[in-house]
Amino acid sequence: MPRGAAVPGAAEKAAVLVEALPYIRRFWGAVVVVKYGGNALGAEGTGGEAAARASFAEDVVLMRSVGMLPVVVHGGGPQIGELMARLGKEPEFRDGLRVTDAETLEIARMVLVGKVNRDLVSAINVHGPLAVGLSGEDANLIQAAARDESLGYVGDVAAVDPTILQRLLAQGLIPVVATIGADPAGQAYNINADTVAGALAEALEATKLVYLTDVAGLRADPEDPGSVLAQCRPEDLDRLVAEGAARGGMVPKVRACAHAVRHGVRQAHILDGRVPHALLLEVFTDAGVGTMVTAEPGVGASGEETR
Amino acid sequence: MPRGAAVPGAAEKAAVLVEALPYIRRFWGAVVVVKYGGNALGAEGTGGEAAARASFAEDVVLMRSVGMLPVVVHGGGPQIGELMARLGKEPEFRDGLRVTDAETLEIARMVLVGKVNRDLVSAINVHGPLAVGLSGEDANLIQAAARDESLGYVGDVAAVDPTILQRLLAQGLIPVVATIGADPAGQAYNINADTVAGALAEALEATKLVYLTDVAGLRADPEDPGSVLAQCRPEDLDRLVAEGAARGGMVPKVRACAHAVRHGVRQAHILDGRVPHALLLEVFTDAGVGTMVTAEPGVGASGEETR
Amino acid sequence: MPRGAAVPGAAEKAAVLVEALPYIRRFWGAVVVVKYGGNALGAEGTGGEAAARASFAEDVVLMRSVGMLPVVVHGGGPQIGELMARLGKEPEFRDGLRVTDAETLEIARMVLVGKVNRDLVSAINVHGPLAVGLSGEDANLIQAAARDESLGYVGDVAAVDPTILQRLLAQGLIPVVATIGADPAGQAYNINADTVAGALAEALEATKLVYLTDVAGLRADPEDPGSVLAQCRPEDLDRLVAEGAARGGMVPKVRACAHAVRHGVRQAHILDGRVPHALLLEVFTDAGVGTMVTAEPGVGASGEETR
Amino acid sequence: MPRGAAVPGAAEKAAVLVEALPYIRRFWGAVVVVKYGGNALGAEGTGGEAAARASFAEDVVLMRSVGMLPVVVHGGGPQIGELMARLGKEPEFRDGLRVTDAETLEIARMVLVGKVNRDLVSAINVHGPLAVGLSGEDANLIQAAARDESLGYVGDVAAVDPTILQRLLAQGLIPVVATIGADPAGQAYNINADTVAGALAEALEATKLVYLTDVAGLRADPEDPGSVLAQCRPEDLDRLVAEGAARGGMVPKVRACAHAVRHGVRQAHILDGRVPHALLLEVFTDAGVGTMVTAEPGVGASGEETR
Amino acid sequence: MPRGAAVPGAAEKAAVLVEALPYIRRFWGAVVVVKYGGNALGAEGTGGEAAARASFAEDVVLMRSVGMLPVVVHGGGPQIGELMARLGKEPEFRDGLRVTDAETLEIARMVLVGKVNRDLVSAINVHGPLAVGLSGEDANLIQAAARDESLGYVGDVAAVDPTILQRLLAQGLIPVVATIGADPAGQAYNINADTVAGALAEALEATKLVYLTDVAGLRADPEDPGSVLAQCRPEDLDRLVAEGAARGGMVPKVRACAHAVRHGVRQAHILDGRVPHALLLEVFTDAGVGTMVTAEPGVGASGEETR
Amino acid sequence: MPRGAAVPGAAEKAAVLVEALPYIRRFWGAVVVVKYGGNALGAEGTGGEAAARASFAEDVVLMRSVGMLPVVVHGGGPQIGELMARLGKEPEFRDGLRVTDAETLEIARMVLVGKVNRDLVSAINVHGPLAVGLSGEDANLIQAAARDESLGYVGDVAAVDPTILQRLLAQGLIPVVATIGADPAGQAYNINADTVAGALAEALEATKLVYLTDVAGLRADPEDPGSVLAQCRPEDLDRLVAEGAARGGMVPKVRACAHAVRHGVRQAHILDGRVPHALLLEVFTDAGVGTMVTAEPGVGASGEETR
Repeated sequence: MPRGAAVPGAAEKAAVLVEALPYIRRFWGAVVVVKYGGNALGAEGTGGEAAARASFAEDVVLMRSVGMLPVVVHGGGPQIGELMARLGKEPEFRDGLRVTDAETLEIARMVLVGKVNRDLVSAINVHGPLAVGLSGEDANLIQAAARDESLGYVGDVAAVDPTILQRLLAQGLIPVVATIGADPAGQAYNINADTVAGALAEALEATKLVYLTDVAGLRADPEDPGSVLAQCRPEDLDRLVAEGAARGGMVPKVRACAHAVRHGVRQAHILDGRVPHALLLEVFTDAGVGTMVTAEPGVGASGEETR
Repeated sequence: MPRGAAVPGAAEKAAVLVEALPYIRRFWGAVVVVKYGGNALGAEGTGGEAAARASFAEDVVLMRSVGMLPVVVHGGGPQIGELMARLGKEPEFRDGLRVTDAETLEIARMVLVGKVNRDLVSAINVHGPLAVGLSGEDANLIQAAARDESLGYVGDVAAVDPTILQRLLAQGLIPVVATIGADPAGQAYNINADTVAGALAEALEATKLVYLTDVAGLRADPEDPGSVLAQCRPEDLDRLVAEGAARGGMVPKVRACAHAVRHGVRQAHILDGRVPHALLLEVFTDAGVGTMVTAEPGVGASGEETR
Repeated sequence: MPRGAAVPGAAEKAAVLVEALPYIRRFWGAVVVVKYGGNALGAEGTGGEAAARASFAEDVVLMRSVGMLPVVVHGGGPQIGELMARLGKEPEFRDGLRVTDAETLEIARMVLVGKVNRDLVSAINVHGPLAVGLSGEDANLIQAAARDESLGYVGDVAAVDPTILQRLLAQGLIPVVATIGADPAGQAYNINADTVAGALAEALEATKLVYLTDVAGLRADPEDPGSVLAQCRPEDLDRLVAEGAARGGMVPKVRACAHAVRHGVRQAHILDGRVPHALLLEVFTDAGVGTMVTAEPGVGASGEETR
Repeated sequence: MPRGAAVPGAAEKAAVLVEALPYIRRFWGAVVVVKYGGNALGAEGTGGEAAARASFAEDVVLMRSVGMLPVVVHGGGPQIGELMARLGKEPEFRDGLRVTDAETLEIARMVLVGKVNRDLVSAINVHGPLAVGLSGEDANLIQAAARDESLGYVGDVAAVDPTILQRLLAQGLIPVVATIGADPAGQAYNINADTVAGALAEALEATKLVYLTDVAGLRADPEDPGSVLAQCRPEDLDRLVAEGAARGGMVPKVRACAHAVRHGVRQAHILDGRVPHALLLEVFTDAGVGTMVTAEPGVGASGEETR
Repeated sequence: MPRGAAVPGAAEKAAVLVEALPYIRRFWGAVVVVKYGGNALGAEGTGGEAAARASFAEDVVLMRSVGMLPVVVHGGGPQIGELMARLGKEPEFRDGLRVTDAETLEIARMVLVGKVNRDLVSAINVHGPLAVGLSGEDANLIQAAARDESLGYVGDVAAVDPTILQRLLAQGLIPVVATIGADPAGQAYNINADTVAGALAEALEATKLVYLTDVAGLRADPEDPGSVLAQCRPEDLDRLVAEGAARGGMVPKVRACAHAVRHGVRQAHILDGRVPHALLLEVFTDAGVGTMVTAEPGVGASGEETR
Repeated sequence: MPRGAAVPGAAEKAAVLVEALPYIRRFWGAVVVVKYGGNALGAEGTGGEAAARASFAEDVVLMRSVGMLPVVVHGGGPQIGELMARLGKEPEFRDGLRVTDAETLEIARMVLVGKVNRDLVSAINVHGPLAVGLSGEDANLIQAAARDESLGYVGDVAAVDPTILQRLLAQGLIPVVATIGADPAGQAYNINADTVAGALAEALEATKLVYLTDVAGLRADPEDPGSVLAQCRPEDLDRLVAEGAARGGMVPKVRACAHAVRHGVRQAHILDGRVPHALLLEVFTDAGVGTMVTAEPGVGASGEETR
């Protein structure tokens, strides 16, 4: 458009920028841990996947550009399953959990660290030298412990040393974390990415913990799409789990949200990652999207102080 | 609006934010010197004045929130005239320039430093402890020299020591500068604010120098409102002055723009300060407003690299 | 005088320098808040005023040259009254306090920030780029609250944020503070300068708080010039106020001294600003001048440790 | 052994430590880029591989413990071939170079970043939180360009931005680099690891560039195991390549050594990685192992100054 | 030896370096105070003395090269006695302690600061600009008090200000301390070097305190050379002193060891300085030499964590 | 004197302090190398010596208190001669220079480092933990070379590494340097202190180099006490040496002054150390004492800028 001409939509544009101002100021320097859903976003096809990744990368870079400190965490269940199938490796489940033998672990590690992580790093670095991929083994970021011997190399988070993340954040970089951990002997474990995201948010004393999912938010009634909760508190989450209203892959997210909000994280969010730029809309506009979990009663959208 | 509900206009909001992203990234850490027009903006009445100031303050705070380093410069001719009138002091002009005797200088200094500057500082500090008012006498920021003895205490910029500005910027503060300078003996002088803005932009090696005025931009033909230039180069400005197309109060602005762009400032702008949030629209959207001066040929809106 | 010749007075000069040595060492790095009397020093005529200011500036610069960190605070009652008179504005008093309507406040602010403050900054900066003028509105230095609605914009100190002072001091600069404050909505207030000096001294954990006045010191008997107290303690000050021995403009000074010494300031002084270089003599010689208030019993001149 | 008893071998132990002293002092703070051979070391079986890796990890940690700054670079040809075989992917060669289509690239990236790199990081981190795995895509470490369109995603090093390596080294960490690079559009490429090692050594202005191989050193006559060169100069290497005496996988190593030594790297080494702790023996003892390339004539073992 | 040839003893050399690795890592950044025995090492003749000093200097430089922070403390009784004899000054003893008059003090100070200290500094600085000689008078390192007026200028440690040592250590320098102290009036005193070593170790919160002596270690039975204790605890030392098993010059060492280990020093050692490189063998090999005192029960050689 | 009373001499005291102000400001941060005359000051008796030292120490501490960075250099010829006499060692001269065999060197080193240096450090440290004694051997401060083999261990300055001095100065400490140097093999040499003072001043790019002597200044005619030069230039010094007007111990001073002023030192001074506080009078008052050497023509007392 020619400079100096009348600018249609100028007032509206200015209004959006002005609306964003208080959020930008509030979240300057705030650490935000974002779990990017390995099995949800754009899973329908390669093109959709790449487009969703590019849109997500834009959001993350914008957050950092206005002074926020995003940390990306990801899993990659479907992609692991796909490579296992190609290698003719039969998945084995026990009580709904995948049994992870040495070969499965190696496949999972290759896919998470060598493929999903790389694709996210590349999508972000189109915008500049910003992202650095990490696995939990790097600089002992995530110390793992076996969850249950019969499950093989399925791990729990035993401890988190966030030093490497803090240093990369201090240098203006965006860490992208694949959720492999290691025990003191150097043995690797595959860990649930939702759980890791919560643990990192706590260790970093993050301001926000955000789950990007393929649902509109947390439902009070799992069968009723109209029962999405706008805001709730940790005890509400406990009840949803106890009553079975939160189910399947939603359980570790819900548990991590409740734990994180009880351990210093100010706000946890379950967002609909299918809405383009859901992250931006949640963070920078008055109307949030999805479900927000916070320990504080009766607080609107993002209406409290960060300190 | 309730969280989790459908968000009308969400896509449009996201689009504006995404449009702003490359500009935010490009201008992170960039010094922008903004001349706030003492005699133009909202001069018609106190209410309008305060509203214009508040809107301007919002823009400046938003710029800083996304990492830019704004420096505000202002004059205050009409307000000086008003106090002189109340004190029964007759203005005296020589060749179109106000003769400034000791008493006039004292009045000008009181108005600029003690009123106009204070009002701008207050409008910004509603948003936080951000602005610090300065006059050119502070820490020898502006060393002045008499322009012409017969004009009394009308000064030119003899030298600029930007150290105090650099320190305040480094601390995240927004300097607001009243354009009084002092000579080595401590004698104060009143200096044209347009000229000072250009000199500070050069001394700070600013990325942008912006004049907020009460016109739509620089006209190729002063009589034709439709001849506003979208973009031009320093030699175009020379010609406009030589041909008399730039006149009156526009002359020091035009000269300062040409000089600044030739001495390291990347872009100079003459904007229509009457457009709400003109500053934001210029800086953060694809369609600039007003006239942009740059030494580089054929560059669109804000389309070049800062380094 | 020719080099190498016999130097008359050499021994005496050396003796003064050697006498100053322990004070220089004791007060290195010490913050000293000095209230420069707006209505006392050299008020008799313009020449006297400028000379007193120049002498005061020399003292302040010398203090800083030997490592002390002076902060200057000033009021300006007489100068405000003078401009009000010229503008035909009738002063109105209630219970001895000036009622400050919006116009009076604007006049006060112009005079304090735009004239008295400027004159002090200029006098100091003759010696180098040292002084920076501030008002309490800058970077939220002084948060004000209305004292009493019927008095208009007469304020009390609600809070002090000394950050901007600490930063300027750390950069080797000398802050000169005009005692205008602002409330959270940006409304300005005029505040008693004696009170502000004490509040800044406390917020800065100053070593010394010094009032330069036009009397020889604090008198035990207000009618008896021979009853000047050399040294006293906070409880003595309480009694002087209660008994009415401290009166008029002396009351806020006396109260601020008592409060400051009880809140971390080591020594408060009421000096005779009419003695040339009173500040130097107090700080750097064995014989102090005026009245010293300290919480510690029986300590001579400046004879204690700073820590 | 009981404390205080006679210590057999004490004198010998002390002698080794004393022998190491001058090398420790000389190489304090020196960057050493080590190419760990993907296809050579311990390739005979999994057990041997893990043991060789553990021994190598010990050497690298010891180097860092005495103040050196090691950077590990690795390839992984055999492991890539193995996964391709398992996936039924037929390798295709053109002029002796593997044609790398999108699928091959994805496999190579998974293996290098998600397996070989991880195994090295884990082996080092048994000793503490020291290693951080990187690929050339992280923070734009290695910018790649296609070598030849007919070869697909086989890349050359277009540029190196060593910032992320320098930061990790400054934090006491050991970077382990997988040799995937990316072009500005984010497309990944597989790059020869020998070439990358040389490019990183130059960009880091490394003191040493070391290739751990499965031969005793560089031979003057490729058929004569007794013709291993103890030391040579870049022009010797040029001749060996020109005459065909350096062949196959040795060519990129030899070329990288010659280029590096001509561009600021002080010493390049081709060592026999099959000798346990070859790295330690080369660096810390008077008798080096393998072939040393240096631009300086007639210098013994490691007998020159680092600056 | 020619490069690239078979390396005899290579495996043994590598083994020693690998054995040293965990100690190097454990003691990185650890302060080690070493008392170099003035009357024991190489006392038999000038040649032996210089050789012992050179070997000791090598050990100290090696410790520093691997990141330890050694501080050397020394006395010089025999050398003082020798100069006194040459000056015809008759030593006088009271209860076994040398009476130190002003002249004796001056002689002691000259010998300790001007000769023994210098010789050690020179021996170390052959390896680089590393050592800086200090006496306890420098920057008030050791404040002394008279032990007993009848003994003259024999002092006790009244206080230690380790600032100067910490600064030199932070700059990578090796302080060498002569044990002269001063009282507040500037009067110098001669202080027992064993006692000073312990006091400095405590003030520096040293990891190790090492006494190099001319015996094999501390004996349970002073008459039985076979009764050397490998390891003991502070209460064992108390008993040895109480029972008279520790005698003569061993008493201040034993007392200082017990006191230091009870006040934050992790390990104290009494080593046989006649064994070449005893310091290296103790610090960097699995088999310690001499007696180790530690508060922790049943810990082998150097087998505990530093933190 | 009672506080608050009339202060006799107040105006005179203030005048001295005000006179000192510009010098304090000019010399803030300036390095001043002062050669304290070992054979001149107070040599007549122990009492006088100690008093002169105490007065000198006061001057040095005052200089530092006002921000100057003094470095003290000293010799000690008479004291060396005295100990040699007591030890029955016959001095041997060749061409007027003392032949220094190993024993003489050891005596000189003991006296300079262990006695004269200590006495100066103690005198200064009565005022606080300020002085640190150094010899040129410490941290390789002064690298020496033999002047002439037949003279034994009489050295020249081969090189100066001022790092240790700069670090101590940066920490607010006052280095006191004994003029022993060492060659690369660690052999010590005795070096003329006047020469060392000049070399250190050059290496430190000192503002002033000051010689405290026992004469009133440099004489144009050595026989005429009235011919003391107030100021001169390096070429004047050359002529005085060439003509033999500068003789004996004055020659190295005169040569060092000329060399220093030609190599970056702004001013060199030859002062009469017998005048109490000569150093203070020279530095802080309008009337200098003794002779000033400077490269600049016609500059009064200390009347130029430091940069």
